[in-house]
Amino acid sequence: MAGPPKGKVLLAYSGGLDTSCILAWLLEEGYEVLAYMANVGQEEDFEAAREKALSIGASKVFIEDLRREFVEELIYPSVQCNAIYEGVYLLGTSLARPVIARRQIQLAQQEGCTHVSHGCTGKGNDQVRFELGYYALEPKIKVIAPWRVPEFFNRFQGRNDLLAYAGEKNIPVVQTAAKPWSTDENLFHISYEAGILEDPNVTPPSDMWKLTVDPEDAPNTPERIDITFAKGRPVKVENRNDQTVVTDALDLFIYLNTLARRNGIGRIDIVENRFIGIKSRGCYETPGGTILRAAHLDLEGLVLDREVRQFRDEHVTPAFSKILYNGLYFSPEGAYINSTLEASQKNVNGVVRLKLYKGNVIVEGRFSDTEKLYDMEESSMDVHGGFSPQDSEGFIKIQSIRLKKWNGQF
Amino acid sequence: MAGPPKGKVLLAYSGGLDTSCILAWLLEEGYEVLAYMANVGQEEDFEAAREKALSIGASKVFIEDLRREFVEELIYPSVQCNAIYEGVYLLGTSLARPVIARRQIQLAQQEGCTHVSHGCTGKGNDQVRFELGYYALEPKIKVIAPWRVPEFFNRFQGRNDLLAYAGEKNIPVVQTAAKPWSTDENLFHISYEAGILEDPNVTPPSDMWKLTVDPEDAPNTPERIDITFAKGRPVKVENRNDQTVVTDALDLFIYLNTLARRNGIGRIDIVENRFIGIKSRGCYETPGGTILRAAHLDLEGLVLDREVRQFRDEHVTPAFSKILYNGLYFSPEGAYINSTLEASQKNVNGVVRLKLYKGNVIVEGRFSDTEKLYDMEESSMDVHGGFSPQDSEGFIKIQSIRLKKWNGQF
Amino acid sequence: MAGPPKGKVLLAYSGGLDTSCILAWLLEEGYEVLAYMANVGQEEDFEAAREKALSIGASKVFIEDLRREFVEELIYPSVQCNAIYEGVYLLGTSLARPVIARRQIQLAQQEGCTHVSHGCTGKGNDQVRFELGYYALEPKIKVIAPWRVPEFFNRFQGRNDLLAYAGEKNIPVVQTAAKPWSTDENLFHISYEAGILEDPNVTPPSDMWKLTVDPEDAPNTPERIDITFAKGRPVKVENRNDQTVVTDALDLFIYLNTLARRNGIGRIDIVENRFIGIKSRGCYETPGGTILRAAHLDLEGLVLDREVRQFRDEHVTPAFSKILYNGLYFSPEGAYINSTLEASQKNVNGVVRLKLYKGNVIVEGRFSDTEKLYDMEESSMDVHGGFSPQDSEGFIKIQSIRLKKWNGQF
Amino acid sequence: MAGPPKGKVLLAYSGGLDTSCILAWLLEEGYEVLAYMANVGQEEDFEAAREKALSIGASKVFIEDLRREFVEELIYPSVQCNAIYEGVYLLGTSLARPVIARRQIQLAQQEGCTHVSHGCTGKGNDQVRFELGYYALEPKIKVIAPWRVPEFFNRFQGRNDLLAYAGEKNIPVVQTAAKPWSTDENLFHISYEAGILEDPNVTPPSDMWKLTVDPEDAPNTPERIDITFAKGRPVKVENRNDQTVVTDALDLFIYLNTLARRNGIGRIDIVENRFIGIKSRGCYETPGGTILRAAHLDLEGLVLDREVRQFRDEHVTPAFSKILYNGLYFSPEGAYINSTLEASQKNVNGVVRLKLYKGNVIVEGRFSDTEKLYDMEESSMDVHGGFSPQDSEGFIKIQSIRLKKWNGQF
Repeated sequence: MAGPPKGKVLLAYSGGLDTSCILAWLLEEGYEVLAYMANVGQEEDFEAAREKALSIGASKVFIEDLRREFVEELIYPSVQCNAIYEGVYLLGTSLARPVIARRQIQLAQQEGCTHVSHGCTGKGNDQVRFELGYYALEPKIKVIAPWRVPEFFNRFQGRNDLLAYAGEKNIPVVQTAAKPWSTDENLFHISYEAGILEDPNVTPPSDMWKLTVDPEDAPNTPERIDITFAKGRPVKVENRNDQTVVTDALDLFIYLNTLARRNGIGRIDIVENRFIGIKSRGCYETPGGTILRAAHLDLEGLVLDREVRQFRDEHVTPAFSKILYNGLYFSPEGAYINSTLEASQKNVNGVVRLKLYKGNVIVEGRFSDTEKLYDMEESSMDVHGGFSPQDSEGFIKIQSIRLKKWNGQF
Repeated sequence: MAGPPKGKVLLAYSGGLDTSCILAWLLEEGYEVLAYMANVGQEEDFEAAREKALSIGASKVFIEDLRREFVEELIYPSVQCNAIYEGVYLLGTSLARPVIARRQIQLAQQEGCTHVSHGCTGKGNDQVRFELGYYALEPKIKVIAPWRVPEFFNRFQGRNDLLAYAGEKNIPVVQTAAKPWSTDENLFHISYEAGILEDPNVTPPSDMWKLTVDPEDAPNTPERIDITFAKGRPVKVENRNDQTVVTDALDLFIYLNTLARRNGIGRIDIVENRFIGIKSRGCYETPGGTILRAAHLDLEGLVLDREVRQFRDEHVTPAFSKILYNGLYFSPEGAYINSTLEASQKNVNGVVRLKLYKGNVIVEGRFSDTEKLYDMEESSMDVHGGFSPQDSEGFIKIQSIRLKKWNGQF
Repeated sequence: MAGPPKGKVLLAYSGGLDTSCILAWLLEEGYEVLAYMANVGQEEDFEAAREKALSIGASKVFIEDLRREFVEELIYPSVQCNAIYEGVYLLGTSLARPVIARRQIQLAQQEGCTHVSHGCTGKGNDQVRFELGYYALEPKIKVIAPWRVPEFFNRFQGRNDLLAYAGEKNIPVVQTAAKPWSTDENLFHISYEAGILEDPNVTPPSDMWKLTVDPEDAPNTPERIDITFAKGRPVKVENRNDQTVVTDALDLFIYLNTLARRNGIGRIDIVENRFIGIKSRGCYETPGGTILRAAHLDLEGLVLDREVRQFRDEHVTPAFSKILYNGLYFSPEGAYINSTLEASQKNVNGVVRLKLYKGNVIVEGRFSDTEKLYDMEESSMDVHGGFSPQDSEGFIKIQSIRLKKWNGQF
Repeated sequence: MAGPPKGKVLLAYSGGLDTSCILAWLLEEGYEVLAYMANVGQEEDFEAAREKALSIGASKVFIEDLRREFVEELIYPSVQCNAIYEGVYLLGTSLARPVIARRQIQLAQQEGCTHVSHGCTGKGNDQVRFELGYYALEPKIKVIAPWRVPEFFNRFQGRNDLLAYAGEKNIPVVQTAAKPWSTDENLFHISYEAGILEDPNVTPPSDMWKLTVDPEDAPNTPERIDITFAKGRPVKVENRNDQTVVTDALDLFIYLNTLARRNGIGRIDIVENRFIGIKSRGCYETPGGTILRAAHLDLEGLVLDREVRQFRDEHVTPAFSKILYNGLYFSPEGAYINSTLEASQKNVNGVVRLKLYKGNVIVEGRFSDTEKLYDMEESSMDVHGGFSPQDSEGFIKIQSIRLKKWNGQF
């Protein structure tokens, strides 16, 4: 036969039941299927998954270590702008999507694939994030999203249908009980949603949480660390308990994860608003990211100008966060907002001293050897430095002009 | 004698060394002085202070219990809009200023005072907050701010000068050692600043913190509570450990303070940007307010529409917070922003279930009997409720039009 | 016969070729069809259209005069917040959609229609605006949008197919040549798009513009008018050339249209960004609305507080405009934003004096008998009223503290 | 004598009565005075002013041509971000201040002046703009603002006092009647305020307007021009009536002024809110700037992405405008906002075709040879290009999910 009748598909493959069945189904549909696994720091037996994909019939398997670009291009910029969604969520799933989609498109182009495919459902954010990335990077790409294809979703209406199909296709199935929720894990975080979590009043079972210990089980003795930032990026972590020092961008983030995990830091449980107009409940662990956000916010207090901070806080931070959440990193606005981060961070240089204790990230002090916006004498209530008290009088009088005119209008 | 040569002054009096000396100095300058103490929940021996003021020479003393209006008019609206300054500070000092200034003006008008006076320094935010309130409420009022009057601040250059003057004027001085920082306390919070805290790298001594226990000293067993909100305001707190139930607005807040204090909740340590263009370091304890903010934010996730939330979060919350911080509550913009809160909160009805544990406020679940934006079936990944997966395809395709056109412009 | 096999449809009917064919096609498909025409001020022979609909087979025809609610509920609020899209477009089409959709749903409910239908294309904004309105007001309603139904749009691929079908169905066709663009007209504006206008570099032919004279053909003598506003709404127009006075809300708007039309006021030609991610070129005439916007903006300068104006300008105006443009008037955010308008406008009371001349709306003066934020003496450069010049010095000194610290960082 | 007792002052000198008297008064006060005149395009006899300053006693006179930097560093960036204050004012006075203040500080540093001085009043914006610039660029500089110095303003209470002093000091006074308003002129605009204009209901007399002809007196025949933009800056103007072509940045702006002046373009009359909390009435002519703004806005419609435009419009444009208006160009936030302009403008390349006629700037078409966001086929209502009509259906259905849930809450 002269090649697959329908062309080549690059499938984002996880090694799990869903994407294994999708792989088999795509073959059945007449495609040549290449499997692609992105290593963004999740716990995974990549080699076992490779074997599984090949055994199902993948013509090639790509396992790509994207951890460094994930940390340097996505996680640290999100720290630089204190990215947060709806006041609480640190965007862990969203932040990994751009690097995964970008490599998938690069490989699809390199391998001559006309199609890409993924196993996301038709109700979630991730289908949007992947596909907007695909289309932005390669407008001609065709996307196969089986969970939106009636032939597929009508045929596989539940886990039992998939298990039956797996049996039929000799797809090995791991004999663990399925967890009553689904997860997405990467270096930055893990998410838990669906299943029993769909009732927002159900407290997550304590054995659900995977990355962090329960604060109640964390050590009774605090750990103290110093984080050094340069231009808003962490460049050194020093453990003051044991003098460990880490400076490499990737190692540093992994080390912060280790510290946060053992001190019970970074759990949240929220109801959020998806891009797809639905509310959903999610639980998240973002260990290292939670420490970094607290430290970076604190340092900005010391070194960032008030007005620059305000513009960034009110406009850039929400825009960056929403762009990432909605899957629009590869977009005109994504590129534009990204371009504004650097100028806001050039003075964010200094050290934050932290205490980690049973879920708490406690700031114990901060300093900067180079930035001088904070002036101890001027700030002092006890010293008449910097300006005359009468200046304040004029300041207040001028501010009050407008208010006096307005009097009586309450 | 035919009345004071310069008229009557209503002095915001604290009972401490500074305002006692100011009282004596104002008398010396030829004013009749009436003393005014606002009870906004601070720990204070009001009756002793009354005696002291009278003994120095105040012609009248007013002690006003403003706690209920403070809670109902300022604290709960700030909860309704998740007010926060520079990402961390819950605005505890700022929130009390409007009720204090308003009563001071009301009393000044009632007593025929042409002047009001206060003991704030010339470098801080509080002079601005008090005086903008005064001028907005009574444009003709005259303000005497001794710490900005050269005759005063040149004469009293330090604590020793004040002590000497107190001796000379027979002002009783409490024989406790002065703390190496200054504080401002009310029902909502306490602040610590100045003195040894002026070095932002100095860790506050553990005996500084007054309202809360150190998380390390908090109980090893969590406490669980339910908070019920109606239109965004807390209306019931129920302790699930001991079945205590509190519903009165003021009692409820005091009870939340009790719970938070014993569980080590609500400490922060920051460098902030004052309205007066200076950076300063402040430490704050906001026990009950920290619980309420976490609970309210969480409930909004369940019941508030995404777009309403976004407008409120991006525009109303920062505006409200800045207005309060800068002392502009009594202003056209203050009245305007306040008027927009109610419409945003009409659906914020429901219960949040919390676990309090060593500094952590952990959400364990939430529900609303009346609000239905969250739809378990629609949200479910396992059920084809609500809409067709193909709709998502169209949604994504339309979103991608703009991105495809833009291709290649990275 | 036992009723239509598929139920009753309420069709938004224009009397034109497209919706006449849709009417016939819906009948052919087995629906009972009720025709609905909204009178929002467009030039139309409603009675002829009624006859036509009945002759094609409509079981009922509703002709609804919505002009007053259009003016009072949509146009005047848009004036109150200076609504504008992308800096230039006054939202004429968008503003009419809510009243049209609302009455259509009311009639559908009253007549027991399970479906509504419209003749909008599948690429434009109007399908979105109508349908989001329908769904918000009646979540169970079913929408038939024939131009998105393959059986319809594949069968009728151009005007000739529609003409042939009209002939076949005995639908009367007006024997005028089709214009090489399409239009949408209402009391507020007319739009021109598509056809020859799709090349954004083609200058619209001078005979395209229908509502206004060309500025070059407008009178050589200006007309002068006074517009009185109360709470931001126009309540009186007085022509100073001929002493005409109009006060009724609807009559007043119609009269402003008359004045603007004869003076060549209100034409624009733009490329805009549709909600549906496409750029499109549109030409618009908004005669009376252009006068009102200029007058209202001017009066706000005199009577609106700076900070209220700034919040409204930066947040409310863009939100209102985008909500309307995107068809989200009936939405949580639409209701919320609308609720904030009144508080911003309570002081917008006064008179603006205008000169209308060949496309120009020239402000010649303004006054308010009731609002006193503007203070001639205080504003005067020649009088030392209001505050001391030294106050300005303090104001500047305080503002400069931050800048001095920052020095050298350019 | 061994040098001036009080040091050297660099005075911003205009040649008029006020600054001539200030020059003499500063000498009288014991300063050495150097005079500085900035040529920012105002109509002025600079050489006569030089002679006058020397005759009064200035030790040096500097006449600095700042027109090119004014155009390139301030005017064109303001065009790039469509800068506008309170919806109408193009910021003409504010835009010139940074270049004037910067050169004044440079000269002060070069000449060893410890002080700078200016003739601004104590109630206006300009004192703030100049001084914040001075302090930001040279924190140690001392400022003498005679109109805020009691010895000065009490001595010179009106024009007659100044005239008497001029007589006494042999300062030549031009024998023209003083105009009943004051003006500030530069290449970009002229302002009129104070005097008879302080009543906001007084129509400015027709002989007040200096830069532009009255629209009623402008030619009856339109002029047509093409403006070419590159990265958002104008790079070519072509007059289609007479084939004039101008490309130099400065010449181009001067030529646009010529065109706008003779066609009556750029007059406004407003009440605005000063930084100093006061409302004031100003009339302005901004001829060339009005054309450029209309053209740039139009081109952005064609070539700028919707979301980039929205972020820029809602956040960057107001921030830039307020920063300039308030005199904060030399500030952390000024530098930050400036740094974000370039990324927003990289695609703003193309040509706008305009008709100028009696006060109107009418867009007749636009095109871009390089930017392709506008797609005629995709935009077309008649062609099924780009995407399927069913995609719109999915888009609408997804958008409606949230609205359907919300139903009944109006």
